[in-house]
Amino acid sequence: MTDSERELLEANGTFYSAFARRDLQAMEELWSQDAPVACIHPGWEPLRGRDAVMTSLENIFGGGGAPATITCVNATPHVLGPYAAFVVCYERVPGGDLAATNFFVREGGRYRLVHHQSSPIARPAQPQGLKKSGPMN
Amino acid sequence: MTDSERELLEANGTFYSAFARRDLQAMEELWSQDAPVACIHPGWEPLRGRDAVMTSLENIFGGGGAPATITCVNATPHVLGPYAAFVVCYERVPGGDLAATNFFVREGGRYRLVHHQSSPIARPAQPQGLKKSGPMN
Repeated sequence: MTDSERELLEANGTFYSAFARRDLQAMEELWSQDAPVACIHPGWEPLRGRDAVMTSLENIFGGGGAPATITCVNATPHVLGPYAAFVVCYERVPGGDLAATNFFVREGGRYRLVHHQSSPIARPAQPQGLKKSGPMN
Repeated sequence: MTDSERELLEANGTFYSAFARRDLQAMEELWSQDAPVACIHPGWEPLRGRDAVMTSLENIFGGGGAPATITCVNATPHVLGPYAAFVVCYERVPGGDLAATNFFVREGGRYRLVHHQSSPIARPAQPQGLKKSGPMN
């Protein structure tokens, strides 16, 4: 694993530890200030712009919409040159796993989040022979 | 709109026209050859690597898993410097809309796809007051 990949996975871990703690301040520091951000929570319409994303997190953390627990498993780093990168992972929440992507750019010498999307996985409906990976791989 | 944003939306449109035509050759040309690619189809586990993604598209196109029609609506371009960029949009398919993100990098002088994620939208379950955008905005 390269230094960039290690750093990327650390930034990704920061998202999940902040989410688990419902730590809005940590989210404010993690999400990019300069790049155009967006977010698609599970089952939601897309949110576009930092204000919309931060308001959604504030409401989720304060309004009881956050899962009781959330952990990130089987995260793979995808470094796209010196500036941008993304992580594909599973989010383990009560009731099952979600499939998620987190996109980052380098800002102020570290990775900052520009996009998060998390999707329900319909495991029983998964076509046989098409499944390429699982959360325990 | 900048030239990069226009070019980005054109590349995004190429994805949906190729998907609508079930054109695997166009997909081969659109997806990055050099960058680490991934894909999360609606309800699916993450697919990692070009071979897994191309096999999934081949199976979807050939196996009847593709929607009868698909169009991209309300696409917004997010250019992240000279190399990477993403588009957030809705995918209009029979039965409703999906929320999608497509990430691109510049390769060979044009945008090529490195990641696609599409999620079902649970509109009836959307918490009131949290919705920030809709497909007709």
